Amino acid sequence: MTYDEFFQRALDGLKSDGSYRHFAELERQAGRFPRAFHHALGREVMVWCSNDYLGMGQHPSVLEAMHKSLDHSGAGAGGTRNISGTNHEHVALERELADLHGKEAALLFNSGYLSNWATLGTIAARMKDCVVLSDEANHASMIEGIRHSRAEKQIFRHNDVADLEARLKALPRDTPKIVAFESVYSMDGDIAPIEAICDLADRYNAMTYLDEVHAVGLYGHQGGGVAEQRGLADRLTVIEGTLGKGFGVVGGYISGSVALCDFVRSFASGFIFSTALPPMVAAGALASIRHLRQSQEERRRHQARVAYLRASLDRAGIPHIRNESHIVPVMVGEAKLCRMLSDLLLSRYGHYIQPINYPTVARGTERLRITPGPLHEEADIDDLVSALSELWTEQGLSKAA
Amino acid sequence: MTYDEFFQRALDGLKSDGSYRHFAELERQAGRFPRAFHHALGREVMVWCSNDYLGMGQHPSVLEAMHKSLDHSGAGAGGTRNISGTNHEHVALERELADLHGKEAALLFNSGYLSNWATLGTIAARMKDCVVLSDEANHASMIEGIRHSRAEKQIFRHNDVADLEARLKALPRDTPKIVAFESVYSMDGDIAPIEAICDLADRYNAMTYLDEVHAVGLYGHQGGGVAEQRGLADRLTVIEGTLGKGFGVVGGYISGSVALCDFVRSFASGFIFSTALPPMVAAGALASIRHLRQSQEERRRHQARVAYLRASLDRAGIPHIRNESHIVPVMVGEAKLCRMLSDLLLSRYGHYIQPINYPTVARGTERLRITPGPLHEEADIDDLVSALSELWTEQGLSKAA
Repeated sequence: MTYDEFFQRALDGLKSDGSYRHFAELERQAGRFPRAFHHALGREVMVWCSNDYLGMGQHPSVLEAMHKSLDHSGAGAGGTRNISGTNHEHVALERELADLHGKEAALLFNSGYLSNWATLGTIAARMKDCVVLSDEANHASMIEGIRHSRAEKQIFRHNDVADLEARLKALPRDTPKIVAFESVYSMDGDIAPIEAICDLADRYNAMTYLDEVHAVGLYGHQGGGVAEQRGLADRLTVIEGTLGKGFGVVGGYISGSVALCDFVRSFASGFIFSTALPPMVAAGALASIRHLRQSQEERRRHQARVAYLRASLDRAGIPHIRNESHIVPVMVGEAKLCRMLSDLLLSRYGHYIQPINYPTVARGTERLRITPGPLHEEADIDDLVSALSELWTEQGLSKAA
Repeated sequence: MTYDEFFQRALDGLKSDGSYRHFAELERQAGRFPRAFHHALGREVMVWCSNDYLGMGQHPSVLEAMHKSLDHSGAGAGGTRNISGTNHEHVALERELADLHGKEAALLFNSGYLSNWATLGTIAARMKDCVVLSDEANHASMIEGIRHSRAEKQIFRHNDVADLEARLKALPRDTPKIVAFESVYSMDGDIAPIEAICDLADRYNAMTYLDEVHAVGLYGHQGGGVAEQRGLADRLTVIEGTLGKGFGVVGGYISGSVALCDFVRSFASGFIFSTALPPMVAAGALASIRHLRQSQEERRRHQARVAYLRASLDRAGIPHIRNESHIVPVMVGEAKLCRMLSDLLLSRYGHYIQPINYPTVARGTERLRITPGPLHEEADIDDLVSALSELWTEQGLSKAA
């Protein structure tokens, strides 16, 4: 077997079980979001699965800041952060992020994936005998970071404080421990018991590492995430976030103590050896954060649209996971069916919702994950729910009571 | 000891041995490169250590393409590549990159680090019993990718074809093998015997993985790297490159067969779970590549400046590593001295060259790594060499014959 035959065989396996991914080629159009031009279809579609949750990717202040930075500083950063790549905009953005989360410091990465992978991978590897207690639903980037560290990992049951406590209690007090978890879990949309986890961490002398990528910009009076909303930001050792979802640009970061951020800055290979983000990306993110720190309108409309979609789905009997967040997963449970529904929604109705299949979710829990935003109108939601309802009836799928 | 005390103690260790990194806060000014405003110093300095090797970060065609894309598509991609994040610009850029390297396909990543880590990490992990033969001077991102895969790794002596052959010969023919190496090694600037390595790979049935991040844009008639320059591109299984150095923007990529790129696209966690690069970043990179495929002027001037710098250093007796590339490492050999020379160059003469210390290079090989570009004038080089010469005399450092 040649190498290419090996690769092809693995791909054929994905195709035969329906989990092969077809990327939709879109053309985003600033000012038209959540609509985008769909190249294969040759027409504009309504996007229901973007992580540009608040539409900040087309916000005039963000675009203006980026144009200005592009004119002023050019396209790229010029190097790694250490070797000529630290630009004024990176420093200003790190200061803003620290302030947003009420922390001493922050550190930028090229993506949220890298920030989780590099931070957990570095801290857990370098603290002798460290044990990482990881929620079983944690994102791939955290899992890979912990795996990379080769530290002992204990997986606690999802959002299960009793299981976490039993594990913490069984460890010696002096053993370094990190409790790694998320605020909003991206696929089910449920929210962690942050306060109870912080209580345990204090009691058993553990660090806390909270991934807020699906929450920053969206929750809290200044968009600091669920920890800010619940008044808990100061109780977390690390709050990790992204510039690519609620803030609409790209990149990841951590915030924490000066010593912790400096430690990661100094030892994390994935930070040290990466070309820095372009200054204009940092400038755009900075404008986005500043806007969302003082404006409540995007969050208010966002929550209103989420509530409207849920109520409409309920009326139509479309089964969806109930949760406290903005993520509305409509459950299908089978990869090929999930793809077919997505294809019909697109081709017949012009609604684009990417089917979510393995490995993003477990097999048997395939779904249409809907993320309504402040720029969807109620009429758009009516159209979507009516299309889903027709498909549900046509395909003979069971409806909720 | 608290967690912060642990972090602080590790940082104190770096400070005491001189390897603590101080980032220079710069303000790049499009049109002024290789000059930049240095915030701590409060004045403009001449940058000699950027990886924006050709100054493409301020090229009018690149900036124009980015402004246009920003107006058209907004700030961010809107999601991961699979979930609403594939934009028309990504597809066009991947097509261009495949064509540049004469390959069937290409795949974008958020950084060159991620492209190496995710590609090697995925392929080597998933091919049963795979052995990776890795040049001992390989970049951290390849090392971490191989480590991540948990495949067997054999490190061959740097650029040593005989050692590589002995290792290949000892492995069963049917064992999957990857020979992973770089074209231009970033810190010594030497170039791999690519043809001899490809000959061995063919003879012993191995894949070849070539990192060309310090070569793309810079070498070859179309800027396809050293492999293109030497007419060897079709002999490599994978050519990996960056959009952040010669092309002046940010991001990484691989090019190879359709099956291989699709395999990595489908299985690499670091690809699947990352928000895609902003469309405007892809648009800027595309403009940069297209320009450098037809223009020889940047490469010609680049090589001329490198030759001029080397000759000037030789006349002044400043010791530097001889190599065939554009990287001019002036050897110092001690971390604190290296930092002191860098500080004096900056404060007294306005020349910014970041000291390169451990872990970027081995202890004892600390250096000032100079990367002259097409936008440095000969008079700038005269100034730099005269400053180095004064410092060499003042500090009583030994001169080359």
